[in-house]
Amino acid sequence: MTTSISIFDTTLRDGTQGEGISLTAEDKLKIALKLDALGVHYIEGGNPGSNSKDIEFFKRAREMNLNAKLTAFGSTRRKNSICEQDINLKHLIDSKAMAATLVGKSWDFHVHTALQTTLEENLAMIYESIAYLKRHDMEAIFDSEHFFDGYKANPEYALSALAKAKEAGADWIVLCDTNGGTLPTEIHEIVSRVCAVIDAPIGIHTHNDCELAVANTLAAINAGARQVQGTINGYGERCGNANLCSIIPTLQLKMNYSCVSDEQLKSLTSVSRYVSEIANMIQPVNQPYVGNAAFAHKGGIHVSAILKDSKTYEHIAPELVGNKQRVLVSELAGQSNILSKAQELGLDVNVISGSREIIDRIKELEHQGYQFEGADASLELLLRDAFGNEESAFTIESFKILCEKSEANMVTEAIVRVRVNGQQVYTIAEGNGPVNALDNALRKALVQFYPSIANVHLTDYKVRVLDDKDATAAKVRVLIESSDFKDTWSTVGVSSNVIEASWEALLDSIRYALLGKKSSYSMEQLPESVGLSNH
Amino acid sequence: MTTSISIFDTTLRDGTQGEGISLTAEDKLKIALKLDALGVHYIEGGNPGSNSKDIEFFKRAREMNLNAKLTAFGSTRRKNSICEQDINLKHLIDSKAMAATLVGKSWDFHVHTALQTTLEENLAMIYESIAYLKRHDMEAIFDSEHFFDGYKANPEYALSALAKAKEAGADWIVLCDTNGGTLPTEIHEIVSRVCAVIDAPIGIHTHNDCELAVANTLAAINAGARQVQGTINGYGERCGNANLCSIIPTLQLKMNYSCVSDEQLKSLTSVSRYVSEIANMIQPVNQPYVGNAAFAHKGGIHVSAILKDSKTYEHIAPELVGNKQRVLVSELAGQSNILSKAQELGLDVNVISGSREIIDRIKELEHQGYQFEGADASLELLLRDAFGNEESAFTIESFKILCEKSEANMVTEAIVRVRVNGQQVYTIAEGNGPVNALDNALRKALVQFYPSIANVHLTDYKVRVLDDKDATAAKVRVLIESSDFKDTWSTVGVSSNVIEASWEALLDSIRYALLGKKSSYSMEQLPESVGLSNH
Repeated sequence: MTTSISIFDTTLRDGTQGEGISLTAEDKLKIALKLDALGVHYIEGGNPGSNSKDIEFFKRAREMNLNAKLTAFGSTRRKNSICEQDINLKHLIDSKAMAATLVGKSWDFHVHTALQTTLEENLAMIYESIAYLKRHDMEAIFDSEHFFDGYKANPEYALSALAKAKEAGADWIVLCDTNGGTLPTEIHEIVSRVCAVIDAPIGIHTHNDCELAVANTLAAINAGARQVQGTINGYGERCGNANLCSIIPTLQLKMNYSCVSDEQLKSLTSVSRYVSEIANMIQPVNQPYVGNAAFAHKGGIHVSAILKDSKTYEHIAPELVGNKQRVLVSELAGQSNILSKAQELGLDVNVISGSREIIDRIKELEHQGYQFEGADASLELLLRDAFGNEESAFTIESFKILCEKSEANMVTEAIVRVRVNGQQVYTIAEGNGPVNALDNALRKALVQFYPSIANVHLTDYKVRVLDDKDATAAKVRVLIESSDFKDTWSTVGVSSNVIEASWEALLDSIRYALLGKKSSYSMEQLPESVGLSNH
Repeated sequence: MTTSISIFDTTLRDGTQGEGISLTAEDKLKIALKLDALGVHYIEGGNPGSNSKDIEFFKRAREMNLNAKLTAFGSTRRKNSICEQDINLKHLIDSKAMAATLVGKSWDFHVHTALQTTLEENLAMIYESIAYLKRHDMEAIFDSEHFFDGYKANPEYALSALAKAKEAGADWIVLCDTNGGTLPTEIHEIVSRVCAVIDAPIGIHTHNDCELAVANTLAAINAGARQVQGTINGYGERCGNANLCSIIPTLQLKMNYSCVSDEQLKSLTSVSRYVSEIANMIQPVNQPYVGNAAFAHKGGIHVSAILKDSKTYEHIAPELVGNKQRVLVSELAGQSNILSKAQELGLDVNVISGSREIIDRIKELEHQGYQFEGADASLELLLRDAFGNEESAFTIESFKILCEKSEANMVTEAIVRVRVNGQQVYTIAEGNGPVNALDNALRKALVQFYPSIANVHLTDYKVRVLDDKDATAAKVRVLIESSDFKDTWSTVGVSSNVIEASWEALLDSIRYALLGKKSSYSMEQLPESVGLSNH
């Protein structure tokens, strides 16, 4: 018999307090749909009392018929006033959300210092605000801010704040480690005590300031809490909130609790990556469970063991959370990594004699700054070249870029000279920047020979300075991600010139797209408009 | 009376198994010096049996007279052989390191599947290898790989492996959660059991696959372990190793253990950032204790409370780990954030009337993709412009870039037309790339007027695509970090053209460098060589 844990997602509210995170109402609606599909039980969408964007979000989200309970966030009423005249409480009601989170104080120090009111008035603020929401038929969740610090300072007062919320009809009482400074042993002890004396469903809300947000959440669940407040990817103020992407699979796969369905759990990796895309954050490759390196193996010994039985080095099957195993190629790798990659590509691994050369070549390129761990397609081209079974679909003779800015106007053009099937093609194209112009000019030159190239487009472009001693004159590494609507692949280029590095990665991307494809046209079939020149 | 915990750093060995991390022998030596200054007790430098780079490291590191014990890593001897003929053990001895870590199996499944030998032979491998090191007067640390999985599967066998190591003279017995899949409650229970039956100093080595590496380490310490194996910034294979940057301050500031001196603890933030620089990794802004956002406050309410008493929202004083408090500016911020920033800059905060306009302007720019959280200097220019107390040191009329590649040769030139003190300056310069060429041309134009500009140089350059739907045609944000050998500042530019975005950030950088500086030369004083033109 498994116990259910209520998953309360606050990515759209507390998550947006994270540095570098900013979401439009449209972004929030998109993310809400994904969260709903993942199966979270509450979606806290924002603070309608603080800005018009959140008001718009609630208005539009109501029409989406989510399974999750849409939840609005606000504070207990202002001191020395009445709920009926409190503008923030009015916004909560007006949001027409099914539930509202009310944050309130339980640390006497905060009541005095931050609120600057009496302990009694704070209790009245809690009681009256919760009762007011309940009179308006909203589910009321009381988030007890700084509860653990409050409990340590004055346990009686902290518990009396919870008791007031319960008395007023709060549906959940959530204990917040707002500073993120509490240890798992303390969390376990204090939550156990609260569960013993407060007869209401208890929730936990932790922050990651000691890198313990996940552990603190699990400790609270072990002590009897039944709701987890957290965010996708652990986004949130300072060091972030509790990371639902780590908590949900751990509760479900290792602790026998039930949060979402097994099918929904398989969408975890894609939800994590989707939210990081929308939030315009880079997903850390080493993110537990869902990161690109979470099941990536680099050490040569590990790789040979993994090939024998993946259980030897993996704590769960990556597929359970929608992730997958990867074998990385790097200077630490033994020959087994390269061979396993070649095997994956269907190349003849018996060509061992050439393999030492390939390893040396990869080591040499890595030494120059190339990194194939994030550029599978460039690595595949390298291996195929080494195995000597691919002809180049085209060769480049030269290119030129002109970029001119005067007043508000900016023009960028690229000229490329390419040889395909022994014929020279000479094209010019404009672009939004030098790399876009080069991309356009190159594809203009090739599309007549290889019509499928029309579907290829770049989906990400990253520049990394390799040596920060002299940034704009230093070596840079460019990573390009491309897609043809079916597959996605990554390529790499390195140079002290960002244009040249981009160009290298761009060429690899196009070469990869054309792997195994023959030119569809011969010289004779080419229409006049292609603009061939025969120097 | 505080108990000491031995800190065993494996950044240079296990840390380099992390995706994207690659260190030269020179890098490793630099990092070893920093680790030694931080006060770690063991520095595991690498695996001299696996590559010549690590052999070189040990050779050179021996001469540095570190306080920490230099430690080499290797495996127990090969199956069915003798230590005297084991090449890896020979490399450990030859490294002349003071200590050696020997990794060995204690999980019966692994002995059968990965080693493919008998349980008895594995015990002999452990015993003989440890004894061999002891005969060569090395401190011997036994790292029991997959210990927790092994204990869960076959506790008797797992404990017998530890007992063998102890019997052979191991100085430390370290329990490794190699898969990173064990929970804190399990760690606590199993370590307690080991401490009860094995009479040797016990260490803990955890991985972060469930985002629990720090919690698992603390649980082991609570259960009696006295050595922590981990890495700076938690670098390591897959999801990383236990993060010493979180563990050391938590043990020392919150759990009353002693690891390093208080003075050494204050270097933690700078060590973390130094290692990330050398490893060429970006330090996550939200990294606990040492990240740039670890004590950054964004929410308007928080900021006003922080201004009253920083204890209200901070779990420790940031200075204890060498970090500092920051107030972020963003759309969520109330007026108080902007005013606190203006106050920091010494601007007249009584100009409240203008402040609403500034907030609106910042919101509008953030909407366009600007981000001032990482670009303090651009924000300062914006505020100073709004307060109207700065004249621009120069104005740009136009620029042009030419970039040409043919065969192996690549040439990039930039031409800029600048107006300074009412005079037009027209310069051309080459560069390693378009941004470098622009930087060179602009500084060539300005240095005659503002000689101090000669000291300004770019130290980092980052490009971020803001909208990934169509990468090379999408909007990009460029962040530039500059330095004049005294101060460091960051600026931002946004455009669909990477050159234009870079140019914006570059201009802000130079404008910031010239804040408050007057041109040192008038027209009359200028030497002929400046190349003025007066159209």
